[in-house]
Amino acid sequence: PPSKLPQVGTSIFSVMSQLAQGHGAINLSQGFPDFSCPAELAELVGTYTRNGFNQYAPMTGVAKLRENISRKTELLYSVAPNPETEITITSGATEALFCAIAAVVRPGDEVLVIEPAYDSYVPAILLNGGQPVFIPLSFPDYKIDWNLVKSRITPKTRLLLLNSPHNPTGATLSTEDLASLSEIIRDTNIFLIGDEVYEHMVYDGQLHQSLLRRAELFSRSFIISSFGKTYHATGWKVGYCVAPPALTQEFRKIHQYLTFSTITPVQYALADYLENTEHYLNLPAFYEQKRNLFSHLMVSSRFEIIPSAGTYFQLAHYKDITDEPDVAFAKRLTQEIGVAAIPVSVFYHNQQDNKVLRFCFAKNEATLRQAAEKLCVL
Amino acid sequence: PPSKLPQVGTSIFSVMSQLAQGHGAINLSQGFPDFSCPAELAELVGTYTRNGFNQYAPMTGVAKLRENISRKTELLYSVAPNPETEITITSGATEALFCAIAAVVRPGDEVLVIEPAYDSYVPAILLNGGQPVFIPLSFPDYKIDWNLVKSRITPKTRLLLLNSPHNPTGATLSTEDLASLSEIIRDTNIFLIGDEVYEHMVYDGQLHQSLLRRAELFSRSFIISSFGKTYHATGWKVGYCVAPPALTQEFRKIHQYLTFSTITPVQYALADYLENTEHYLNLPAFYEQKRNLFSHLMVSSRFEIIPSAGTYFQLAHYKDITDEPDVAFAKRLTQEIGVAAIPVSVFYHNQQDNKVLRFCFAKNEATLRQAAEKLCVL
Ligand SMILES: CSCCC(=O)C(=O)O
Ligand SMILES: CSCCC(=O)C(=O)O
Repeated sequence: PPSKLPQVGTSIFSVMSQLAQGHGAINLSQGFPDFSCPAELAELVGTYTRNGFNQYAPMTGVAKLRENISRKTELLYSVAPNPETEITITSGATEALFCAIAAVVRPGDEVLVIEPAYDSYVPAILLNGGQPVFIPLSFPDYKIDWNLVKSRITPKTRLLLLNSPHNPTGATLSTEDLASLSEIIRDTNIFLIGDEVYEHMVYDGQLHQSLLRRAELFSRSFIISSFGKTYHATGWKVGYCVAPPALTQEFRKIHQYLTFSTITPVQYALADYLENTEHYLNLPAFYEQKRNLFSHLMVSSRFEIIPSAGTYFQLAHYKDITDEPDVAFAKRLTQEIGVAAIPVSVFYHNQQDNKVLRFCFAKNEATLRQAAEKLCVL
Repeated sequence: PPSKLPQVGTSIFSVMSQLAQGHGAINLSQGFPDFSCPAELAELVGTYTRNGFNQYAPMTGVAKLRENISRKTELLYSVAPNPETEITITSGATEALFCAIAAVVRPGDEVLVIEPAYDSYVPAILLNGGQPVFIPLSFPDYKIDWNLVKSRITPKTRLLLLNSPHNPTGATLSTEDLASLSEIIRDTNIFLIGDEVYEHMVYDGQLHQSLLRRAELFSRSFIISSFGKTYHATGWKVGYCVAPPALTQEFRKIHQYLTFSTITPVQYALADYLENTEHYLNLPAFYEQKRNLFSHLMVSSRFEIIPSAGTYFQLAHYKDITDEPDVAFAKRLTQEIGVAAIPVSVFYHNQQDNKVLRFCFAKNEATLRQAAEKLCVL
């Protein structure tokens, strides 16, 4: 049949992970840890599965999990969303993103997408009949130019997608960013999506500036997070969306018919695991140490490290090494040097190539040392 | 915001399950077993989780699971779909249904929906801009009138949704049905969805007439099944779609951005579990015994049992008991008699009320006996 998404090929994440595997390269491309989830959490999943917690969870998610998300949110962002009416568990953050987009985007609507952008945003917008309007971050400091954002708003603008901490750049929104955002959208009806899946990976003593922190932003936002990212189990595909009641109601209408519900024993396990606040309060330090190690090791290379304030990604400029386009260089690096990374041009609709690669540092120390050693021979 | 799905309220499955819980009623409404998955399978999930199989599965699904689905399909339907190009693992059959619909339905397309119909079909069609065209099954024998189907085909008809074994009626497609279908669509470009999630619940020595059995049908079909239904773990939300390569390619473009992948340790566990053919060859007998027990017990009631050839559902006519509309009667039955069932009118776009309730017999013998005893007091 003629394709609804003619432009879509195999995702760069699958391409690079397969290439890495084929060449026995160290895989710092697709974002996932090379260590597993905490043993205690794995044990809980096994226990709930063995004990028969295997039938449909409620469509909205297991109640105790929603309650503990609310507590976590209160502790971190001083807002306690209502678990009944404002929190929905989804089959990964990708599903939550699709549901939020489908809930509000109608044919002909414009959606503001800040680039570089995660690869699922645009297909989800197109499948719902929307029109993406692209706004580049500045380079090389990857900041949002709020005047530029303002200039792209039209009467058709329905939604603005924000991602902080930002994949692939590691940039984070500041309190000033949130203030500018409030100011710009005050007299509009624009909805917001806050893709905050890396909320627990913010470094250097900074606080994650969730859209939840400002009532005038939250009142029009879908805020999305991911337990896969948070607990080193990207393969579990359990995420959630926090949104005010009217938006949650529309979100759930989509979720109900997209997946209906999400894996029951894992939801119970996560609910228990969240009881202990250390299980999330310790995460920034855990990943900051990895970021520091990797960027420190890379100082001896000819890559130029671009500071990462959050996420488990590290960008590196390679203009002093080669003139190759980033996709070609990423493939050669995998095949010849034995380290896989993601070329950042794939996150731009026009493949803008700033000669930057993205490395995932959610890896054991030994992996990071081995990778850096290889990268330093260049 | 104005709703994209204004007609959607809380699903009848959630409503009735909650009502059952609130009144301590035996829940024969929402379709799920009151027993758990096989202990061996639960053990496998625990083991893979503990052993670190917790990162992203391939977008298309774990290879060994796809291979074993192909073997099962060959054994049962004499066709071995290519695991690489024709099988995709999804986050439940509901996700697979949405992906298949989204892959082919464009704004303005008509989609033939046979009623009574599962509740996710129409919202998925509407969200993709399609127009459902409803075709009622005959009553009370719930057969497809193929001349009626033919008369509803127009140049805009894009897709026909078939569900066999059929929820809620328990009706199954025969070889004659498949022949009529082939004949009717031969000179059209209509695609097919075969919702075959109850493929392992076909009784009385009949064979499941999968669309896979006829090459001229499979060549334009998405065939969808569900491990949740098959292995008594509806809460796991792991399903799959079998479709020829060109359709699978479009299907995966949607799946990639809807959920990307599906829970890894469960996929590995299912892959192992499928190695033993008894684990699916014994299923029809297992459920047939439950069907026989429940329908036998109901002979003493004033309900009139409508024969169920497949699924784990049993319809019952209650016209000799009361004139109440089926939704009202289903609620009263839950509250006063202590047995929850699904009113079949909710499966019709116009709430056609034939005074029929659906009972789920995927329950332990004691549960079925208790329920029948209560129902016999009426
Ligand atoms: C769903 S695969 C991509 C994982 C990821 O978030 C990334 O690598 O950016
Ligand atoms: C997803 S809840 C509905 C379960 C089911 O298939 C049914 O009861 O018909």
